[in-house]
Amino acid sequence: MPRNIKKQSKMAGLPPGTLIHIGEKNPGKTKITLLTYDQDHYEKKILNTIQECFIYKDTPQIKWINIDGLQDVGLIQQLDEHFGIHPLVLEDILNTGQRPKIENFENYLFIVLKMIYLSPQGNDIVSEQVSLIVGQNICISFQEKEGDVFDPVRKRLEENKGRIRKLGVDYLAYALLDAIVDNYYVVLEKFAEDMEILDETLMNGSEITTARKIHKLKRVMIDLRKQIWPLREIIGSLQRGESKLIKKTTVLYLRDIYDHIIQVMDNIDTSRDMLSGMHDVYLSSISNKMNEIMKTLTIFAAIFIPLTFVAGIYGMNFEFMPELKWRWGYLAVLGLMSGIGVGLIVYFKKKKWF
Amino acid sequence: MPRNIKKQSKMAGLPPGTLIHIGEKNPGKTKITLLTYDQDHYEKKILNTIQECFIYKDTPQIKWINIDGLQDVGLIQQLDEHFGIHPLVLEDILNTGQRPKIENFENYLFIVLKMIYLSPQGNDIVSEQVSLIVGQNICISFQEKEGDVFDPVRKRLEENKGRIRKLGVDYLAYALLDAIVDNYYVVLEKFAEDMEILDETLMNGSEITTARKIHKLKRVMIDLRKQIWPLREIIGSLQRGESKLIKKTTVLYLRDIYDHIIQVMDNIDTSRDMLSGMHDVYLSSISNKMNEIMKTLTIFAAIFIPLTFVAGIYGMNFEFMPELKWRWGYLAVLGLMSGIGVGLIVYFKKKKWF
Amino acid sequence: MPRNIKKQSKMAGLPPGTLIHIGEKNPGKTKITLLTYDQDHYEKKILNTIQECFIYKDTPQIKWINIDGLQDVGLIQQLDEHFGIHPLVLEDILNTGQRPKIENFENYLFIVLKMIYLSPQGNDIVSEQVSLIVGQNICISFQEKEGDVFDPVRKRLEENKGRIRKLGVDYLAYALLDAIVDNYYVVLEKFAEDMEILDETLMNGSEITTARKIHKLKRVMIDLRKQIWPLREIIGSLQRGESKLIKKTTVLYLRDIYDHIIQVMDNIDTSRDMLSGMHDVYLSSISNKMNEIMKTLTIFAAIFIPLTFVAGIYGMNFEFMPELKWRWGYLAVLGLMSGIGVGLIVYFKKKKWF
Amino acid sequence: MPRNIKKQSKMAGLPPGTLIHIGEKNPGKTKITLLTYDQDHYEKKILNTIQECFIYKDTPQIKWINIDGLQDVGLIQQLDEHFGIHPLVLEDILNTGQRPKIENFENYLFIVLKMIYLSPQGNDIVSEQVSLIVGQNICISFQEKEGDVFDPVRKRLEENKGRIRKLGVDYLAYALLDAIVDNYYVVLEKFAEDMEILDETLMNGSEITTARKIHKLKRVMIDLRKQIWPLREIIGSLQRGESKLIKKTTVLYLRDIYDHIIQVMDNIDTSRDMLSGMHDVYLSSISNKMNEIMKTLTIFAAIFIPLTFVAGIYGMNFEFMPELKWRWGYLAVLGLMSGIGVGLIVYFKKKKWF
Amino acid sequence: MPRNIKKQSKMAGLPPGTLIHIGEKNPGKTKITLLTYDQDHYEKKILNTIQECFIYKDTPQIKWINIDGLQDVGLIQQLDEHFGIHPLVLEDILNTGQRPKIENFENYLFIVLKMIYLSPQGNDIVSEQVSLIVGQNICISFQEKEGDVFDPVRKRLEENKGRIRKLGVDYLAYALLDAIVDNYYVVLEKFAEDMEILDETLMNGSEITTARKIHKLKRVMIDLRKQIWPLREIIGSLQRGESKLIKKTTVLYLRDIYDHIIQVMDNIDTSRDMLSGMHDVYLSSISNKMNEIMKTLTIFAAIFIPLTFVAGIYGMNFEFMPELKWRWGYLAVLGLMSGIGVGLIVYFKKKKWF
Repeated sequence: MPRNIKKQSKMAGLPPGTLIHIGEKNPGKTKITLLTYDQDHYEKKILNTIQECFIYKDTPQIKWINIDGLQDVGLIQQLDEHFGIHPLVLEDILNTGQRPKIENFENYLFIVLKMIYLSPQGNDIVSEQVSLIVGQNICISFQEKEGDVFDPVRKRLEENKGRIRKLGVDYLAYALLDAIVDNYYVVLEKFAEDMEILDETLMNGSEITTARKIHKLKRVMIDLRKQIWPLREIIGSLQRGESKLIKKTTVLYLRDIYDHIIQVMDNIDTSRDMLSGMHDVYLSSISNKMNEIMKTLTIFAAIFIPLTFVAGIYGMNFEFMPELKWRWGYLAVLGLMSGIGVGLIVYFKKKKWF
Repeated sequence: MPRNIKKQSKMAGLPPGTLIHIGEKNPGKTKITLLTYDQDHYEKKILNTIQECFIYKDTPQIKWINIDGLQDVGLIQQLDEHFGIHPLVLEDILNTGQRPKIENFENYLFIVLKMIYLSPQGNDIVSEQVSLIVGQNICISFQEKEGDVFDPVRKRLEENKGRIRKLGVDYLAYALLDAIVDNYYVVLEKFAEDMEILDETLMNGSEITTARKIHKLKRVMIDLRKQIWPLREIIGSLQRGESKLIKKTTVLYLRDIYDHIIQVMDNIDTSRDMLSGMHDVYLSSISNKMNEIMKTLTIFAAIFIPLTFVAGIYGMNFEFMPELKWRWGYLAVLGLMSGIGVGLIVYFKKKKWF
Repeated sequence: MPRNIKKQSKMAGLPPGTLIHIGEKNPGKTKITLLTYDQDHYEKKILNTIQECFIYKDTPQIKWINIDGLQDVGLIQQLDEHFGIHPLVLEDILNTGQRPKIENFENYLFIVLKMIYLSPQGNDIVSEQVSLIVGQNICISFQEKEGDVFDPVRKRLEENKGRIRKLGVDYLAYALLDAIVDNYYVVLEKFAEDMEILDETLMNGSEITTARKIHKLKRVMIDLRKQIWPLREIIGSLQRGESKLIKKTTVLYLRDIYDHIIQVMDNIDTSRDMLSGMHDVYLSSISNKMNEIMKTLTIFAAIFIPLTFVAGIYGMNFEFMPELKWRWGYLAVLGLMSGIGVGLIVYFKKKKWF
Repeated sequence: MPRNIKKQSKMAGLPPGTLIHIGEKNPGKTKITLLTYDQDHYEKKILNTIQECFIYKDTPQIKWINIDGLQDVGLIQQLDEHFGIHPLVLEDILNTGQRPKIENFENYLFIVLKMIYLSPQGNDIVSEQVSLIVGQNICISFQEKEGDVFDPVRKRLEENKGRIRKLGVDYLAYALLDAIVDNYYVVLEKFAEDMEILDETLMNGSEITTARKIHKLKRVMIDLRKQIWPLREIIGSLQRGESKLIKKTTVLYLRDIYDHIIQVMDNIDTSRDMLSGMHDVYLSSISNKMNEIMKTLTIFAAIFIPLTFVAGIYGMNFEFMPELKWRWGYLAVLGLMSGIGVGLIVYFKKKKWF
Repeated sequence: MPRNIKKQSKMAGLPPGTLIHIGEKNPGKTKITLLTYDQDHYEKKILNTIQECFIYKDTPQIKWINIDGLQDVGLIQQLDEHFGIHPLVLEDILNTGQRPKIENFENYLFIVLKMIYLSPQGNDIVSEQVSLIVGQNICISFQEKEGDVFDPVRKRLEENKGRIRKLGVDYLAYALLDAIVDNYYVVLEKFAEDMEILDETLMNGSEITTARKIHKLKRVMIDLRKQIWPLREIIGSLQRGESKLIKKTTVLYLRDIYDHIIQVMDNIDTSRDMLSGMHDVYLSSISNKMNEIMKTLTIFAAIFIPLTFVAGIYGMNFEFMPELKWRWGYLAVLGLMSGIGVGLIVYFKKKKWF
């Protein structure tokens, strides 16, 4: 969408691999959280500098480094030097206008995708880029700002629920992806509600704002689709075992995510069809309203114009108009008028105009 | 559709393999029916507990366990332990928002699809998830609630009609799938009737409810399509003999189901085209009605407004208006008015306005 | 289409291979015609019972058994037993709601397709299911009722025209398919005429029936497309030599049919585009007509309403209205009115409203 | 398109390979032109009978036989016998309703395509079928009538320009195809002009003929697309070197044609998009015009109807209407009327109605 | 688009490889710039004749020859002779109506694509053809006129920024392609602004020019899409390492461009969807406006026509109309009229007409 374009156009002309943060600036310090765990052990630390985590590099435990905030380019560059991440990958992490993708390097996997959630006020949909680097016993996740959908994963790690502490870093990566995809449903539920409200509005009136709302929802839907669709490919690639970092036992779980993505896509497509249908109904309702207005006008005009004409005749000033002298002339004309009026009303009733 | 979304969003954050029933709760006990049969033998039992069927595990006879109702999560978990079903499969069985799919495990096949039938009142279309686990000599079917389309299969088993008792568990699975697919035709027939009624309504009037009805039918059609379409892939996969549980002799029968699914899809597509056509005709009929209304108005206005004007002239109070004094002035004016009126009527007749 | 659905839904619940005739019942006896021929010999017999043809089973001559009428299920069952046809094939023959398809069995080919022709009155399009079983030296064709498009083939056989008597049973099958496909052109020609007539109607008026007719034609077109489209696949499969019954020399002829089917499909697609265009023109013409009506109304109203107002002024009964006393007051007002009228007419002329 | 259908339906029932000329009959003799050339030699002859060219059969020089007119079926049959062309190919040559295609025979290539050019008057688009048979050192081209786009090729041959005389018969075939494809640009240029004119018409008015013209152009576009699209496949097939008659050096040139066809298709698609846009603008302009008409009506009616009502009040004949007696009553009412009139005008001005 | 067609149709009939400049003529001399560089060395020269660069042919340094202006056909022909470029390639360079493409020759790569940038005034989008010939240590770029988007690349070369001087000619080619693709974002940003402005216009009014502007933007979008889309294929082909001139290290950078192109395409598609939505809203707003106009008319007419009729009754001149004599007749009628008026206003208020 245009938003991304604006960001991206700033980079025109820079050499590749230049690290520039492209995206919303959010002030405040980058927050680094380190989780180390194995079957028996679990530790959570909030680090002040990225260097603090380098000492864990070769420990056998699984390390999950989560970085909230991309504004500190220097910090991210140090990761490059320490863990040997390709500069183009770092560029992609910093540039938040990425399309979801997966890249397979010799000793790590790079996955970038969109975390979509409702704003704390619950009215807006927030799309935040999440990048994952999955290496041997280490997973580094990058987020644009604090606040994410990973809390259930953290809780499972802490409370040693399920199998997460028993399985490797690939399962952790799966759990993170799963948390992101599961949250899409929450967003879609909000949509479903918005659509229901819109559908009811449609029943009652047909103001121009309705058309705008339908198209706004449609636009968000298209946007969402574009952000989610490439995920299918990503999970597919992981499933096919193209990376040696993904163990066989995890593949089955990935198939589950895959099914969910297909379901989400199905939902989005159905919603688009429904919005198209609502637009059609909206147009029909405008036309119907117009018909109703025109009927009202026609009934009024068609009844009173002839009557006024009759009155006009007897308002003429001719000297020789015998009817004017008749005793019952006036009543006769009133009768005639009533006759015409009733006749026309009956006629329109028959035509089912009212 | 939104309905599924609401269900699914409850699961966000739970570890994979968590068994939670997602779907309509229907109170009442889960009903377990066990059918054991071979060529010479047929037995039907209604079980109180799932354990009762475990003793049959290694008998050579074919066992069909049918479970109506998914609310008893514990019961389903026991199956897991006893028959060695993967927890993700059980999760899928309980989550009734599944997209139809087939999964090939080492010693069983897992098929999930939608049974679609008319509600007993015959007005609504009910979509119920059916899961099949097909193993060596055993077939377990899971349904959301009592009442299904399998009665003809049960009757054939009981009365030993056709070849069903002579052939293996793969043929039983085929028979169940066939019963489900055959019932799609019944649903489509109901649709065809609804569409015929709608088409007639369209002939007579063009109320806004017609547009709504067209779009409602369209929506159900899209929904149906989404539930049936993946079946094609499922049967295709079975046909290609990707599972060793499916014998060669059964493949030919599966081809038959495959043809039926294609036919059903063809039908749905044709119906959608017809509904689109009906919407177009509907819009045309609104426009035509508007034309008719406007013609009525125009004819009335165009005839009487000039006449009223003429009457207005001779209603003026000028002192020197010689016509007012004429002996035949009044009649002449009446004649003039008739002339104008008839002239305009002829003009509109010529334009074929009425 | 709905028609098929109604038929098909009767079969729900029956075991596969159950022989039930699904389709229009046409009373009267099934007609069996046997043609035996080789290069030097040609014989035509009308049989009373199907058994009469069994004696020819192993003769070296080519046998073409044509069966008109599917109501005699028993007769068709005998073919099964005698020639070893699979029961599912017989079921497909009897069920006239088939989608065109080809099935390759070990010693015979089964082809089912639609023969489309104009009814003898020439107004309706009749679609009849034709099934072909092509075996070693034998071809059995099944039709729903008497009357077909095979007469030119019969004549060529009888008069030994072309190469038909010199070549094998695969060439006979080709000739029959070719006759069916060639006849599609005749049907399309009828369509082209209908469309031309409709196009002319469109030039003259824009009644609601036109919209209906356009959509009816479109529907028939969609229907036709669905019946013909699968043929492409069938001929393609024959061409690729997937059956050993088709000799190399015949493949070139099949390529010819293939080209024809593509041409027919092209035609249907073009016709659909044309019908869409006609619908657009229709909608435009309704809007234009509305504009014309509104112009008429506006011109009448805009001219006479101001004039009537002027007349109204001088119809007021104020005591002190000096104009009323003027000698030329009446004429002056008439002049003023003419001026207003002419001015407005000129104004509308300039706006090119008439 | 319907035109072809009419032709084709005549063939229904004829045995395959029957030589019948299907297409416009153009009287006059078939014109046979023989060109023989090699690097040093060039000769042009107009032949009276086809036999005259048979003597050249085995000369090492390259022979291009061009046949204008297909009405002489006998002549074309002799080619069959002499050069060993398959009867189905000859049938295709004579039947001018062919879809462009290429067929690869053992010792010759058969290409059929459409030559599209402007009629000499420059107003109509003429589509003529050209068939090419390319053999060892011989190229036979068949055209429906005299007049073609090959003159530049002939000139290059005669004047020994470029490499045409140095290269083989495959290069000649390429040159002919190139001439045909190059001419598509000329036709498209004419289209572009027609569309520009139409676009200007659209700016000025919105008569129903505009809608018709847009759809006529659209139809021609669809038609053109269908005639050109299969060429892509043909050239693609030639390029892939599927025929041993095409030398490697020629393949590069064919790639050039391929690019041109893609460009032509791009153009046609863009034009279709533009025509769709024009139709949308047309519909908008009708609606806008309607709005304008209705505004005019509403302004007139809304201003004068209330004024007429005021005049009507003082035209009542009540005995006790004090205003009528007032000295300034008349002027006061005139003032009141002016006030109402000006007020309404200001109101509509504010609403930006005029 | 039509523009290209006009150019291209000039070439009809010319032998392939004829060098003719097709495109806008821009007077002035062709400008040749030679850049030679390696890790330690950088030199920039403006050449008067193309021959001056031939002496560098076999130096180990990387040479980038940039040619601005295609009008000097002779100059380009010399390149052919000296560097052994195929004449068809030169023809493609000169013909500025090319579709983006890549061609793989034995010792050089030929890439043609579109450089799209805003005109210096910033209002128009300029599309200029850029051709690249990438050989061993040499890159020749051809542009239609002076002024390009390569300045950042030149600066990086001059200032030895990034890795550009360390890497080979394939990286230079990548840098040029990257500069072109990066600039697409700048163009799209301009579009996004235009669309925002249009969207605001849409909020306020609904003039016919809005429809035109929407369609103009749509057209430019379609145009842009067509010019950018083939790039995907080009970069894809380079990435797959189909040319030995592209080193492995560069492939990763190409993947980056590939992602950008996909992003640009996504953007264009989203913009098209948004424009379609805007057109729909536009149509809705026209219909709404019409409804509003009709309501105004109907309210005025429906209120005053009955009142005028009442006034008309008491304007009749019957001798026996008792009401006329009543003391309070006039006031009673005025009261009646107010009653009717208020009643109708209340009625329309209830209908929410104003």
